[in-house]
Amino acid sequence: MKTKCLVLLSGGQDSTTCLFWAKKKFGITETVSFDYGQRHRIELKSAAKIAGLAGVKNSVIVIKEFEAIKYSALLDLKADVSKKHSLNKDLPATFVPGRNILFLTAAAALAYTKGIKNIVIGVSQVDYSGYPDCRGEFIKSMEKSLSLGMEYPLKIHTPLIKLDKKKTVLLAKKLGALDIMKHTHTCYEGANPPCGKCPACLLREKGFKEAGIKDPLKA
Amino acid sequence: MKTKCLVLLSGGQDSTTCLFWAKKKFGITETVSFDYGQRHRIELKSAAKIAGLAGVKNSVIVIKEFEAIKYSALLDLKADVSKKHSLNKDLPATFVPGRNILFLTAAAALAYTKGIKNIVIGVSQVDYSGYPDCRGEFIKSMEKSLSLGMEYPLKIHTPLIKLDKKKTVLLAKKLGALDIMKHTHTCYEGANPPCGKCPACLLREKGFKEAGIKDPLKA
Repeated sequence: MKTKCLVLLSGGQDSTTCLFWAKKKFGITETVSFDYGQRHRIELKSAAKIAGLAGVKNSVIVIKEFEAIKYSALLDLKADVSKKHSLNKDLPATFVPGRNILFLTAAAALAYTKGIKNIVIGVSQVDYSGYPDCRGEFIKSMEKSLSLGMEYPLKIHTPLIKLDKKKTVLLAKKLGALDIMKHTHTCYEGANPPCGKCPACLLREKGFKEAGIKDPLKA
Repeated sequence: MKTKCLVLLSGGQDSTTCLFWAKKKFGITETVSFDYGQRHRIELKSAAKIAGLAGVKNSVIVIKEFEAIKYSALLDLKADVSKKHSLNKDLPATFVPGRNILFLTAAAALAYTKGIKNIVIGVSQVDYSGYPDCRGEFIKSMEKSLSLGMEYPLKIHTPLIKLDKKKTVLLAKKLGALDIMKHTHTCYEGANPPCGKCPACLLREKGFKEAGIKDPLKA
């Protein structure tokens, strides 16, 4: 029997790299994306496009929780995404409390219904922008919580956890995932073409520059 | 400064008991309920009524994830709530994969925005109906995952974890929470008056009977 996996696909550069990593490692790959009221909702279109081009199924799960918990610049069109968080000055304004915890839980529940025991998420604790839910220690703990809470042995794979953006770009190249990068969306502002100024755009630019590769989005 | 806490209030007997336990233990108590497409959605009215009578604020968080993950009799009007789960014969049909994981995550995110560091949930690993997300081991792991993932030291309190239904009824009596039980909702069928036949109704009846107390709902 082929091993199945579910990739969390935001439509960005990292999750797209993970999708290609997963396609190589696992027998059957599916993706899941989240519609959670993000200001850069345009990324859902990127995710659908990328899944289609990669020939995998993409499920979209609607998450409404954040309507009740609006404390992030990523959910507020009027907020400045480059500032610090209004509730915690040690975190960026774009931190959405509980975001990856909810994403992983919803993905795990979907995986449960599909008999999938491998989940892939493109977090990195190198270029993690200060998000606590991108660290390996959290992922390990969450893997345990999900497995216990559903009585279902899940494994969370984080192929990018120790990679900076430069190394992620080089991995994408190695996996043959560079061409498809022109369909990814990174910009926090939801702008197309990207704004080039938000923290996400700047981090992406830095990665491609350091890897010595031209961003296909700009070709 | 008074210690604040957030109680997960379903509108049932256990969470109502927890609310009264929390009111006694903490300086400031708030509640949160979840609108997740449950067939016994009537319990949300009970929760609002009970919070009102107890003089505490009740927030409602809408959860849409389960629309994509419909594998539980609790979400399906046509399913038999007394049977085993369609995906796992060791679990009851009413098991919603990831339910308490999502509830705790959403509650934690709400708590984060309110500066609340104590969460109270009425799970019991004695009369836990076979739900893996009601066990102490899961709660401990989840407390760690949430604290790590939000970089925010949360404590999850489970005052009923070692109590069977009889002892929960006796605790409610001790806390002066018996009268208010006439406003609680337990029935999985969402029936009012309760069906008296579903697993939740039967467990409630057993608890009051063994405690030697007449259920105020039937008075």
